[in-house]
Amino acid sequence: MDFVSIPKRKNESWISEYSTENLKLSMRIKNIIHTEKTPYQDLLIADSYEYGKVLMLDGAYQLTERDEFCYSEMMAHVPLCAHVKPEKVLIIGGGDGAILREVMKHKNISRCTLIDIDERVIECSKKFLPEQSCAFNDSRAEIKCMDANKFINETSEKFDVVIIDSTDPVDFAANLFQAGFYDAVKKIMAPDGILTELTESPFIDTNLMKQAINQMREIFPIVKMYWGVVPTYPSGFWTYGAASLSGDPAVPLRTVDNTRYYTNEIHKASFILPPFLSELIY
Amino acid sequence: MDFVSIPKRKNESWISEYSTENLKLSMRIKNIIHTEKTPYQDLLIADSYEYGKVLMLDGAYQLTERDEFCYSEMMAHVPLCAHVKPEKVLIIGGGDGAILREVMKHKNISRCTLIDIDERVIECSKKFLPEQSCAFNDSRAEIKCMDANKFINETSEKFDVVIIDSTDPVDFAANLFQAGFYDAVKKIMAPDGILTELTESPFIDTNLMKQAINQMREIFPIVKMYWGVVPTYPSGFWTYGAASLSGDPAVPLRTVDNTRYYTNEIHKASFILPPFLSELIY
Repeated sequence: MDFVSIPKRKNESWISEYSTENLKLSMRIKNIIHTEKTPYQDLLIADSYEYGKVLMLDGAYQLTERDEFCYSEMMAHVPLCAHVKPEKVLIIGGGDGAILREVMKHKNISRCTLIDIDERVIECSKKFLPEQSCAFNDSRAEIKCMDANKFINETSEKFDVVIIDSTDPVDFAANLFQAGFYDAVKKIMAPDGILTELTESPFIDTNLMKQAINQMREIFPIVKMYWGVVPTYPSGFWTYGAASLSGDPAVPLRTVDNTRYYTNEIHKASFILPPFLSELIY
Repeated sequence: MDFVSIPKRKNESWISEYSTENLKLSMRIKNIIHTEKTPYQDLLIADSYEYGKVLMLDGAYQLTERDEFCYSEMMAHVPLCAHVKPEKVLIIGGGDGAILREVMKHKNISRCTLIDIDERVIECSKKFLPEQSCAFNDSRAEIKCMDANKFINETSEKFDVVIIDSTDPVDFAANLFQAGFYDAVKKIMAPDGILTELTESPFIDTNLMKQAINQMREIFPIVKMYWGVVPTYPSGFWTYGAASLSGDPAVPLRTVDNTRYYTNEIHKASFILPPFLSELIY
């Protein structure tokens, strides 16, 4: 795990994510809480001075206690509030539980299925990240540790909202930004279904962002992009793809309580793109 | 200048900003273009792989070629488009010229006065940052290298829009977030005057941000906050204070062409604050 640096000054330890080979965000840490090599990835949980506890997978920040609400809320509440009547939700990835916690804030949800390929992420979140994993015990939560492709191809269920919270699209997550995958997901979506997915940063992963949106457009009749800030993700400027079978994902139809980033007004505002961004995808 | 690191691997050089003592953003650079110790600060211009040319002052990123449009446009166009008839503009700081360039996009501006205490910033920008300093030659630009406090106390002019683009408020810039300074600025503002200022990040400089907004409120009848992303500023989540003597700074009254971040829609959206932010300042 070469993203854990040796102390630079006496009594100092830092962790770093290389956003690219030319850009690096480093946090000073109090201590490493846990590290392991799971069957799928290098997992590290550390306690940082600036952002509280941090979960890294393969050297990339997945969440910090202090800023995960920025993306957890925008991933969950935008599709849920834009849906006419969301009851069944599927989360692909998201083994830390933060998005599941946000989904469960909606009283009308009858079941939320979470599929993460890596059981160790779930177990470590339960043990070390109680604020993120608190909804694993919700009776409406169904947790499956398996390959999402296998689940999608085999299930006969239909979902109102699908949230794709994958790691960066390499290795086992490589196909999660492809038309073939979106087409498979579309088949398990109910008629008014809405899908959201992290679509990376326009400053750092421009081509990946464009690819994800373009591949969505091949499969879904309505595809829009929205954006927000996530301080510990590369560049801080973060985009989300929203694909819908019927309704406009930019229009909230319901509210949600107890949020710190999301409101219906923020929802609508997040679909207003700066020209440099809309020029990249339209 | 200990923010220039020695090569970590063969043929690699990096520059870093410590956002705090516990958080650091590092960029790999092709080469250092220029360094000097001016009478006021350490100045460095480097060519980075990720963000193009970078200007640092006292170890803090001031601008990069690739992302400065994010804040330059929001600092200039929000007050200018919200003003009923902007003709005379004052920029305090901003010696790199990027905000001046944005101001000059408004045809109705008759004069823009730029006051920067450090002549070397202006001279180095002219020499090394042509895309940012291009408006210094505009016949409507008036450049003064002097202490802004002195200028404000001595001038008999009145300005429609005042833009405060200071470095972080320490040393010679320490008073630029204080009620006394805002009161002095208010006296040189025309009746419909609007002022904007960078008010730092809610994740990194929470107290400074709150102080700036609260001190503005002591002096101006209308004070609002807006926000945006600046990838190379601490946390990427950046706030701006807008103070007005009469009109609502959140309402655009005119348009501007040739922008990459700003539009009238973005203008309005940027005043919609996530709850975690509005709770900090209301």
